[in-house]
Amino acid sequence: MTTGVWIIGARGNVASVSIAGARAIAHGVTDTTGMVTARQPMADLTLPAVDDLVFGGHDIRTQSIERTIEAISEDGGGIVDRATLDVVREDLREIDKRVRIGTARRCGEVVENLSEGATTDDATLADIVSQIRDDYDAFVAEQDIDRLVVVNAASTEPPLSNPEAYDTLDAVETAIETDDGDLPASTLYAYAALVDGHPYVNFTPSTGSSIDGLRELAEENNVPHMGRDGKTGETLVKSALAPMFAGRNLHVMSWEGHNILGNQDGLVLEDDANKAGKIESKGTLLEEILGYETHNAVRIDYTPSLGDWKTAWDHIHFRGFLGTEMKMQFTWEGADSSLAAPLVLDLVRLVAFADEHGEGGTQPQLASFFKSPDGVDEHDLSRQLQMLYDYAERHLEA
Amino acid sequence: MTTGVWIIGARGNVASVSIAGARAIAHGVTDTTGMVTARQPMADLTLPAVDDLVFGGHDIRTQSIERTIEAISEDGGGIVDRATLDVVREDLREIDKRVRIGTARRCGEVVENLSEGATTDDATLADIVSQIRDDYDAFVAEQDIDRLVVVNAASTEPPLSNPEAYDTLDAVETAIETDDGDLPASTLYAYAALVDGHPYVNFTPSTGSSIDGLRELAEENNVPHMGRDGKTGETLVKSALAPMFAGRNLHVMSWEGHNILGNQDGLVLEDDANKAGKIESKGTLLEEILGYETHNAVRIDYTPSLGDWKTAWDHIHFRGFLGTEMKMQFTWEGADSSLAAPLVLDLVRLVAFADEHGEGGTQPQLASFFKSPDGVDEHDLSRQLQMLYDYAERHLEA
Amino acid sequence: MTTGVWIIGARGNVASVSIAGARAIAHGVTDTTGMVTARQPMADLTLPAVDDLVFGGHDIRTQSIERTIEAISEDGGGIVDRATLDVVREDLREIDKRVRIGTARRCGEVVENLSEGATTDDATLADIVSQIRDDYDAFVAEQDIDRLVVVNAASTEPPLSNPEAYDTLDAVETAIETDDGDLPASTLYAYAALVDGHPYVNFTPSTGSSIDGLRELAEENNVPHMGRDGKTGETLVKSALAPMFAGRNLHVMSWEGHNILGNQDGLVLEDDANKAGKIESKGTLLEEILGYETHNAVRIDYTPSLGDWKTAWDHIHFRGFLGTEMKMQFTWEGADSSLAAPLVLDLVRLVAFADEHGEGGTQPQLASFFKSPDGVDEHDLSRQLQMLYDYAERHLEA
Amino acid sequence: MTTGVWIIGARGNVASVSIAGARAIAHGVTDTTGMVTARQPMADLTLPAVDDLVFGGHDIRTQSIERTIEAISEDGGGIVDRATLDVVREDLREIDKRVRIGTARRCGEVVENLSEGATTDDATLADIVSQIRDDYDAFVAEQDIDRLVVVNAASTEPPLSNPEAYDTLDAVETAIETDDGDLPASTLYAYAALVDGHPYVNFTPSTGSSIDGLRELAEENNVPHMGRDGKTGETLVKSALAPMFAGRNLHVMSWEGHNILGNQDGLVLEDDANKAGKIESKGTLLEEILGYETHNAVRIDYTPSLGDWKTAWDHIHFRGFLGTEMKMQFTWEGADSSLAAPLVLDLVRLVAFADEHGEGGTQPQLASFFKSPDGVDEHDLSRQLQMLYDYAERHLEA
Repeated sequence: MTTGVWIIGARGNVASVSIAGARAIAHGVTDTTGMVTARQPMADLTLPAVDDLVFGGHDIRTQSIERTIEAISEDGGGIVDRATLDVVREDLREIDKRVRIGTARRCGEVVENLSEGATTDDATLADIVSQIRDDYDAFVAEQDIDRLVVVNAASTEPPLSNPEAYDTLDAVETAIETDDGDLPASTLYAYAALVDGHPYVNFTPSTGSSIDGLRELAEENNVPHMGRDGKTGETLVKSALAPMFAGRNLHVMSWEGHNILGNQDGLVLEDDANKAGKIESKGTLLEEILGYETHNAVRIDYTPSLGDWKTAWDHIHFRGFLGTEMKMQFTWEGADSSLAAPLVLDLVRLVAFADEHGEGGTQPQLASFFKSPDGVDEHDLSRQLQMLYDYAERHLEA
Repeated sequence: MTTGVWIIGARGNVASVSIAGARAIAHGVTDTTGMVTARQPMADLTLPAVDDLVFGGHDIRTQSIERTIEAISEDGGGIVDRATLDVVREDLREIDKRVRIGTARRCGEVVENLSEGATTDDATLADIVSQIRDDYDAFVAEQDIDRLVVVNAASTEPPLSNPEAYDTLDAVETAIETDDGDLPASTLYAYAALVDGHPYVNFTPSTGSSIDGLRELAEENNVPHMGRDGKTGETLVKSALAPMFAGRNLHVMSWEGHNILGNQDGLVLEDDANKAGKIESKGTLLEEILGYETHNAVRIDYTPSLGDWKTAWDHIHFRGFLGTEMKMQFTWEGADSSLAAPLVLDLVRLVAFADEHGEGGTQPQLASFFKSPDGVDEHDLSRQLQMLYDYAERHLEA
Repeated sequence: MTTGVWIIGARGNVASVSIAGARAIAHGVTDTTGMVTARQPMADLTLPAVDDLVFGGHDIRTQSIERTIEAISEDGGGIVDRATLDVVREDLREIDKRVRIGTARRCGEVVENLSEGATTDDATLADIVSQIRDDYDAFVAEQDIDRLVVVNAASTEPPLSNPEAYDTLDAVETAIETDDGDLPASTLYAYAALVDGHPYVNFTPSTGSSIDGLRELAEENNVPHMGRDGKTGETLVKSALAPMFAGRNLHVMSWEGHNILGNQDGLVLEDDANKAGKIESKGTLLEEILGYETHNAVRIDYTPSLGDWKTAWDHIHFRGFLGTEMKMQFTWEGADSSLAAPLVLDLVRLVAFADEHGEGGTQPQLASFFKSPDGVDEHDLSRQLQMLYDYAERHLEA
Repeated sequence: MTTGVWIIGARGNVASVSIAGARAIAHGVTDTTGMVTARQPMADLTLPAVDDLVFGGHDIRTQSIERTIEAISEDGGGIVDRATLDVVREDLREIDKRVRIGTARRCGEVVENLSEGATTDDATLADIVSQIRDDYDAFVAEQDIDRLVVVNAASTEPPLSNPEAYDTLDAVETAIETDDGDLPASTLYAYAALVDGHPYVNFTPSTGSSIDGLRELAEENNVPHMGRDGKTGETLVKSALAPMFAGRNLHVMSWEGHNILGNQDGLVLEDDANKAGKIESKGTLLEEILGYETHNAVRIDYTPSLGDWKTAWDHIHFRGFLGTEMKMQFTWEGADSSLAAPLVLDLVRLVAFADEHGEGGTQPQLASFFKSPDGVDEHDLSRQLQMLYDYAERHLEA
């Protein structure tokens, strides 16, 4: 039973570190710290082994996975050290040969500028979808894949201007046939996966795969389909801390966040349209947890010197008993790829498991992994994690 | 049905703000922000109304409650404003008349120095216990109290050197009869309450009431008995954040905390013996939540300029995927009394409710209120709160 | 010898706290903490006494100075307490009667929306200037003023689009005569002061008085003229810290700043055009001190819950020996008005002193007070302060 | 003209990184970032070239310099990367052969436990001094050294209990002859250097070389002699920031500092006696700059996970105009060795220069390098740096 992992944005930081990490685990030079599926009770489930995952993917850049990891390693941030790189270098070269040129369709100007020879204006949507499906098929055939999981780890797209226009499968398919200029790459990748029964995970803030038409397709084909936006840094902390303020009835008057980051992601987010997509997906969490609206601005600024690191500063101004105003502030200094990569592996393993058990459609037990979990209103991290533990225990008892 | 609240340390900051706050709520000049029992589902329980609570207490100082609140107000920290003070001033004077001189027996040198005329060396333990019981009785009689809840909100005592010596009720009673020099004030107050069937809450880090002999007494008399050490600041945050690191399998290599505070509590904690008691009660939480030992130092320093405010700085050094080392830091700027006072009122209401329903002994549903909850190993804040919500819902369904 | 102080924006927070503070000092209920002129060697100069300053001013709002201070006091931030307000209340009422309606000409949409009946579109520039001069004259006459110092403490205007157009006095006077639509209020107030020989201090980031044409006028009339933008918070800290990095040859790769503030100023700065003015005046300091360009973003966000308080978070990423990358971060929690007000009084005293000694034109000894000191390239705080000490000592020796 | 550099504690982190860095500069694989002498006007002085410095030293451990650098490199903190290590590896081996076993005499229990075969109890003081002088001589002879500079970079000793006992050269020499049990290693190393005319720099907090008897010796022999305690982290920032509070007449009510660090230094400082020495040397700076006493606690805690990194958190509580209380907080995340090493090279070059110019005794122009500069009361960093710039310019003009 071979599980294939097809990553959109395979040469980006998150995908490359996921791949390098999986191979480093396979070679026994690192452990599974950071992986949720390495903990009890998930570790007792019969999940595909990390060592056996077979990687491939799309990208619009030509810089190889090896070179991406080299750049991260040289940067000196400590995310992948030279010794580890040397151990996995051959594997990365092999995997990079399987990467196919993808599409940058409606990904915003910055992303389009990064693409070299990516399918964009010249092809019709139907052509692009057909090409993507062929790429999936070829990978499955060449690598003897029994189950293919597709994961989107590409840069953030501008948000869909009118998502309601695609709230049936029919509408989505008509849009593809009529070459609708508003459909972004992320819709096409997801459609191509789901229509052929491949589970699909959207790890990015892009909204293209969260439309109801694709949800309908996933349910119709009974294929797992989950997203949106891996919860790795500031929002992760928010989802752990906000329940404390709620639980103690402390009134949050304002919660301001400022994120500085230096990688490709930061460069793309500098572009305002793309930033709008990101900030929107961070927005409703606080209100959901607190139960009321609060002043909640989130800034994202590109600071090249930070490389793949992100620092968030959050300032929480709250009111307690007798109207006393108090403050909590935190800084979070995280290596984005290092936080995201193990979750990509966790998600692949858990949706493969769900698919094996015939559990199609959205996957609420995976809510804790996402900033905006599809189909789930619960944002309290502890309760989201409890949903996963309960799921695992149900399966273990069965 | 009148609920009386007898506070040990009635003229201290926490008690005084609890009393002033309850009266301010009664007069309609403040709301219940900060009170856990004001939230659903607890708000639907038939708890004693805050407005109707009747206060009294012991103290070893002669400075009145009114003066304590005036000092807090003048300090300019914004905890109690002048307008609120003016509204409750008469009530505070009235309540202060009911305060009786307590005992500073084995409370450490600093506390003993604060006491003026407190019962210490001259009286036997049996005399002191008898006097305390008389004080409780007189208050009940004079104020027509139907149920008396006793709350310890006094300064921290040095830890018991040999708590195992008191692990039966017999041992405790023998110690009192033989005038055992090691028994501190907090054991005496608790014994006096429980022996007469008054629910007892230990809001302080003092260990004198957490001995097994008193647990036996509480069970024998079927009277609610819960403690230890109100969870208001740094530890509260820890219990919300540590589960995030655990849940994401991020390995905490060190978690260092530094607390600076300027009130009476800070002065008492400067004394190393008393500090030992405090730090001990903060200690095991991380290991319980994380599941492994980590380097975890907690410093408490007295910084007079801060008045009743406490600032904690925590530095968390953790390791993620591929061995990447990352950091989170936070500062918490809290007004101690303002955070503690509403919890005192919550606890009074909830133990009165438990007593009404014949639920004696330790009260696990109250774990979220304490740094070292008696009889409970769960330190994850969300799970502790869930225990309270489940308790409330069980009662609402019944 | 009576010194009059005419403040543009007299009913705003900075002006109101300056006035209230001066009167509180006069009544002996506060001391001179925060005033640079209260330190040696400046304290030995024969400066006008704070007690004797006579206040008046322009504003475009109708809310009185008393009401502004009341709002600050009620806000609970501790800037002006109730007792102090009561002592100065009568004085504030008296002073408020002397406030005249000013002009909001080209101050940006947000400021114009705040104005009620302010001179804007209907009057010609010449009319407005004439009215301002009449207001100055009337104040001088009514209050028996011997020397009038005019201080701009109004909200920030959008920056002049073409300041070079006004680099001679002739050009400025022609622009006034021809009713040039680009000339903002701050140019008019400054022109009206300087043309009649009143020293003029621009405490705001507005660039309207920093044009060369007004510099020419100040020199021609030998009248002191200094600005721009009181250095009170994040920039003050920068000017103290950046020389440390420079002096130690530590290479600053990025210096990111995020400011959140809740007052009128924050509201006005939310408007992008006005923000451009503010951020520009913060910009060159780092490069001047470090000697090279660095990534240096400054964000300003309006956070209403903070009231008159401003919190800045700065993140400094620097490289040391052997390429080691290190970090410094700071937060500054300051009460803007409380930091600015004593500097307004200092500046009034020091320009009055300069005027008394016949020292017209720009005033380099005052560089330490400003983010963008007119005519001074030195931004190192210690060196700027040394310029003031040297100035004072020269006068003391003379 | 060959300049020799003899480092006490040559195999420790600071010395090893100084040596590795100097060799990396010589091989052209790193630049002089972090070195004060690489800046103008110092760079124009005729200082010994970094490339030409010849290193040797004493240590009490047997772990080689190469191994110390390897450990730092493997630690992943980014202080010395693998590529740089490979370039200098041969040089480090060569230099390590010149390291002689030193003395741990009265260095405190922790340091003594680190020593393996170090001269301690068996030899008399006179023997030890004689051995040290022989070691210096042999190095000079073998390496053809024209001028030898001795630098103490060893771990902190407990402070001298009675430094006044050694306030004449006679007293010191008598103490050596009579084998005085209170004289620590650092006195012996310094005496041995100064008596033979070798300039001596004390980069550590140890007080053994700051006694008046050695000052007398340095003056008598006209040999440069300077210390104490390299100013690299929290104290450096303090000396830059405190003048800002002073200059603006903002009253510092408390300045609390908490340092966590993970290296050898941290381990040694855990020992209370040694810590006393460190904290004492940080103590008076604030009062000197502010002009009044303030509440100023400095904590140092050993946190092994930090390796050679040190994080300081400082909390500054200050009062401004109208009594408003405000706060500044900062964190400093520095790599201790990386900050200290370039200063060691700077000091060697500058004392060699002073010696060349016949400037014996204490060296006030070097005050900016030290937490407790011998013979200098000025602690304001900018003014200290100005002393160095003035010194350099005096020499350049001459």
